[in-house]
Amino acid sequence: MLQTPPAAPGMREEEIDTPALLIDLDVFEANLDRMAALLAPTKARLRAHAKTHKSPVIAHLQMRRGAVGQCVQKVAEAEALAWGGVPDILVSNEVVGLRKLERLAALAPLAEISVCADDESEVATIEDVAAAARTRLRVLVEIDVGAGRCGVSPGPEAVALARRIAASRHLRFGGLQAYHGSAQHIRRESERKAAIDSAIGHTRRTVEQLRQHGLECPIVGGAGTGSFLFEAASGVFTEIQAGSYCFMDADYAKNLDDSGAPVSTFHQSLFVLATVMSRPRAGVAVVDAGHKAVAVDSGLPLVWRHPEILYVGASDEHGKLALGARVVPPALGQKLRLVPGHCDPTVDRHDWYVGVRGGRVECLWPISARGGFS
Amino acid sequence: MLQTPPAAPGMREEEIDTPALLIDLDVFEANLDRMAALLAPTKARLRAHAKTHKSPVIAHLQMRRGAVGQCVQKVAEAEALAWGGVPDILVSNEVVGLRKLERLAALAPLAEISVCADDESEVATIEDVAAAARTRLRVLVEIDVGAGRCGVSPGPEAVALARRIAASRHLRFGGLQAYHGSAQHIRRESERKAAIDSAIGHTRRTVEQLRQHGLECPIVGGAGTGSFLFEAASGVFTEIQAGSYCFMDADYAKNLDDSGAPVSTFHQSLFVLATVMSRPRAGVAVVDAGHKAVAVDSGLPLVWRHPEILYVGASDEHGKLALGARVVPPALGQKLRLVPGHCDPTVDRHDWYVGVRGGRVECLWPISARGGFS
Repeated sequence: MLQTPPAAPGMREEEIDTPALLIDLDVFEANLDRMAALLAPTKARLRAHAKTHKSPVIAHLQMRRGAVGQCVQKVAEAEALAWGGVPDILVSNEVVGLRKLERLAALAPLAEISVCADDESEVATIEDVAAAARTRLRVLVEIDVGAGRCGVSPGPEAVALARRIAASRHLRFGGLQAYHGSAQHIRRESERKAAIDSAIGHTRRTVEQLRQHGLECPIVGGAGTGSFLFEAASGVFTEIQAGSYCFMDADYAKNLDDSGAPVSTFHQSLFVLATVMSRPRAGVAVVDAGHKAVAVDSGLPLVWRHPEILYVGASDEHGKLALGARVVPPALGQKLRLVPGHCDPTVDRHDWYVGVRGGRVECLWPISARGGFS
Repeated sequence: MLQTPPAAPGMREEEIDTPALLIDLDVFEANLDRMAALLAPTKARLRAHAKTHKSPVIAHLQMRRGAVGQCVQKVAEAEALAWGGVPDILVSNEVVGLRKLERLAALAPLAEISVCADDESEVATIEDVAAAARTRLRVLVEIDVGAGRCGVSPGPEAVALARRIAASRHLRFGGLQAYHGSAQHIRRESERKAAIDSAIGHTRRTVEQLRQHGLECPIVGGAGTGSFLFEAASGVFTEIQAGSYCFMDADYAKNLDDSGAPVSTFHQSLFVLATVMSRPRAGVAVVDAGHKAVAVDSGLPLVWRHPEILYVGASDEHGKLALGARVVPPALGQKLRLVPGHCDPTVDRHDWYVGVRGGRVECLWPISARGGFS
């Protein structure tokens, strides 16, 4: 069931029904502009990760500012973007299963479609599907540069798989997928940089070995909001896959710069608006947004501009707030903005973005790829 | 966006696209029958909690077996049930905000609607909304019997609020909501029983004090899958609000009976089907179901009938499996059933139930109240 839209353009923020997913449009647009400005002098271009925003609307705003296209994690996300007019889509992930690959190939008339592989038998399956669909699919080799999840080893193993792809009549070798996910939230900049330097080294050596076998990499992709400045400066990466930068979250806000201060490249633009629904006793208030409305996999949300109010517990539909002894308690019915611990899965809980500017609702945008995990 | 249905009736289980939410229909129906049989000799009737299943289809199956109606947590859930023909719905929770209350009152022509309150000012608002909608709403007083979330104190505070409701022309006093949520997962039966005995005591005293003020309680509701036998035997509770019993989950499976063995009243009928999408190196496999497909707020999922395979990490779209040294690794493309840590929010990630029996898909049921957090 589609959620009832929680607002309409022109409403005041206090009138928005809750829980609702708010974008502070001024901050959001500044984040988009800042990323474009940071990448302009480098050899890398943005292929923003739609796993964060799940919306063709935002994809187009990013491409207007120079992004070459979008990444997704899943076929269902690729469908939502292709149907929404995004012309260049990379599934930055393996796609296993005939039915899923057929759905992906069916998008080829709408957009340039690329997908990753880390297994020779899967390359054969992708080839069969592309042949049956009378198309050619671009396949990247995923290498494990330190995240320890999917991907073949950098070096000879990657070269062997790339040669297998390049030899396939219905496939094109698309390059390397080299994302170091687990490095994105290493707090200290020196340690984060060391992890990414290692990933860059693995990637550079693999690119060179591929070249020795006559294979050029059209795409060398990876990086996230926590690390992209390193990859962009490397000269090796051609595409940056940052996603969270447009919204930010409480987890990314804990990353530190080289002076030990919080990184301030981007600012918080995404919020879950919640209502105080019970004040059962002194020191406690309950809001109507639990972990069905705000993801808690990377920590509990913060209460925006109320550092004295702590969100201390999330159940499905309730958030428990602890109020210190000298805190003026929020009124029953009062609305509070929550800063999500993790933006991507929080977005996945909602059907609608409510864009606000100057205290007024300016727009509603559908989150078309919400729930697109297949 | 509605998710693409992952299956069609007649398919074999191996053909189902993943991630998919499976119901083992034989086990599920046995759970429904068992609850009906357990409550039949008591004074309590089932008002099953739809926060678990979020589906009018399942609500009707429960009511055919004697349930008086359904509970929900949110107005959006009440809407989905009322629109799906459920005739008696209790919002077992406070509803704060004019727009939400107006939506609730708009359902009164379709179903008997009840709601909870724990604040006098909110009772006044509910009365205004009921008057404007030319209807009467049934309002229960929520008392905090130990959960420490919402609710007034048992005893005089509850009596005062009940009298305020009973004196309202457009409201009817509906009784008491007395749910001890945090007791449901106390593992040892003696400790769980002690917590519920205390809740029953608070409730009994409040019912008696209300009677002294001339107020009878049409409903005394509460209890969950972990505790309902105690409340049902109390003679005080008239309605049992268990939800999870129809599906069960890994968290409930940890509760123990009085012999110290796992409680075996109900059995696991809900699964997330996942596909092995990468086998990057020895000892590791990755499935395509992360915490966007299976909720991890109450612990990671288990791999059904493969105790030797551990689901050790969930990211948004990936589940990492650890395989012991002597484990035969699952094949790329192999499907595995996961037992969710927590059934309610897992259901909320899916648009479709896939009912299976004897290895075949028998039915698809829409999860109409999915995402219904408003």
